[in-house]
Amino acid sequence: MKRRKVVYLGPKFTFSHEAAVKYFGDDCDYEPINRINDVFDKITLNDYDYGVAPAENSVGGAIGDTLDLFIKTDLKIYDQITLNIKQNLISLCSDKKDIKKIFSHPQSFFQCAGYIKKNFPNCECIETASNAKAAIFALEEPNSASIGPYLLAKEYNLNILGEDINDKKDNQTKFYIVSKKFKTLAGQKSLIIFSLLNKPGALYRIMKVFKNQKINMTKIESRPSKEKNWEYVFIVEYENSPNSAKNAKLIGEIKKKCDYFDYLGSY
Amino acid sequence: MKRRKVVYLGPKFTFSHEAAVKYFGDDCDYEPINRINDVFDKITLNDYDYGVAPAENSVGGAIGDTLDLFIKTDLKIYDQITLNIKQNLISLCSDKKDIKKIFSHPQSFFQCAGYIKKNFPNCECIETASNAKAAIFALEEPNSASIGPYLLAKEYNLNILGEDINDKKDNQTKFYIVSKKFKTLAGQKSLIIFSLLNKPGALYRIMKVFKNQKINMTKIESRPSKEKNWEYVFIVEYENSPNSAKNAKLIGEIKKKCDYFDYLGSY
Repeated sequence: MKRRKVVYLGPKFTFSHEAAVKYFGDDCDYEPINRINDVFDKITLNDYDYGVAPAENSVGGAIGDTLDLFIKTDLKIYDQITLNIKQNLISLCSDKKDIKKIFSHPQSFFQCAGYIKKNFPNCECIETASNAKAAIFALEEPNSASIGPYLLAKEYNLNILGEDINDKKDNQTKFYIVSKKFKTLAGQKSLIIFSLLNKPGALYRIMKVFKNQKINMTKIESRPSKEKNWEYVFIVEYENSPNSAKNAKLIGEIKKKCDYFDYLGSY
Repeated sequence: MKRRKVVYLGPKFTFSHEAAVKYFGDDCDYEPINRINDVFDKITLNDYDYGVAPAENSVGGAIGDTLDLFIKTDLKIYDQITLNIKQNLISLCSDKKDIKKIFSHPQSFFQCAGYIKKNFPNCECIETASNAKAAIFALEEPNSASIGPYLLAKEYNLNILGEDINDKKDNQTKFYIVSKKFKTLAGQKSLIIFSLLNKPGALYRIMKVFKNQKINMTKIESRPSKEKNWEYVFIVEYENSPNSAKNAKLIGEIKKKCDYFDYLGSY
């Protein structure tokens, strides 16, 4: 069997890396890449079979860039995987008292805001583009620390001064496994994307279809339409019915009411 | 008259700075601050009268951190202001051919993706926490450039190698003016925030109130509830009716159907 080729949002040792390894195991060729749109590009170009990109954090919310790329490309959701996110305070120092500066990705600061306020009320907090970058800054600057995954501390031989420091202990991130193909059309949930003509009540009429079919919507997100400022594309997740005819009917009814419609996948 | 004190999402010379000056003029005391939650904290603590925080970009979408802070605090939307975003390629170099590396905030890369692909297909793109940081990196590293506002190029005496390089020429960002008080309750639009008991059709019933009152929803966003993973708080913007009794009735009807409700402001 050909080894599967998987590209993930890098750099190495971040949560996306962890999600990729958790889903695909060791028997794959992995490649980190620095931007989410490059993950999608590499699959479109057939350089890789699968991509791993963050979809949503339970505190920080949906990752708009990832959703937008499903609008821009023809790629599908092959599956999803949920990871427990445990943030750590990592540093060359061995005592919290020596820390004057903390580096981190904005999302991680957000997730650990209470911990930092309580333990480091006077520290300077500096946002970085990734937690991997933050760890490198913490390596270079005396009396500093960074926030990030355990893998990162291990990689750079840094001390863990605080373990599992996120304010919410059940902090989770969902990742989409992106591919050219579907894994199933009959998973527990499906995700669709659509736009509506800008008429009053248009979204109401879509919701009515769900209500009439007794199918439960589990999420609604809106993203800029890219066609006209302050108009939106909607992304809806719903629970599939065990009755596949009912699911097909739902999609048929919704499609009729939409300006644009795409079925992104099931998981 | 006491001079107004305004805090904005810094650093200096970014689009938030520009928005603050455009709204409040020269006769104010301005202070940049590095994180959105600090903008809200400073107003809550009465250190500043007004804050300026990005609300939504016409390409990148809503700024979740800003919306979440309205849930976490008692602050209100005093007003909003829309800024035309013109990105520039700025560098110490005077020739595009010399550029090997580009620094920028992820949002700006996103807004200029087409331009970069066309003009710099082989450049390394490095994400930074802000465009101001990107400009500093571009100052320090030979053969590099950064993306950012005109003010930034001027401040650091950098050359503008590409003007107005965002792919969409009508790229705009809305900023909220944050305060403890309302400016008006009868602006063109209002913004409300609410959560629903997790029952099928709950959101459908809210939309039905809008439809019955013939009031047009202009936006719906969802944010993580922070109470339970994968449950959501909704943020809805709608066009006020000229009839204030009708607006009050709408709010009364919606409140009754919500688990949590807050009126954020009108503009």
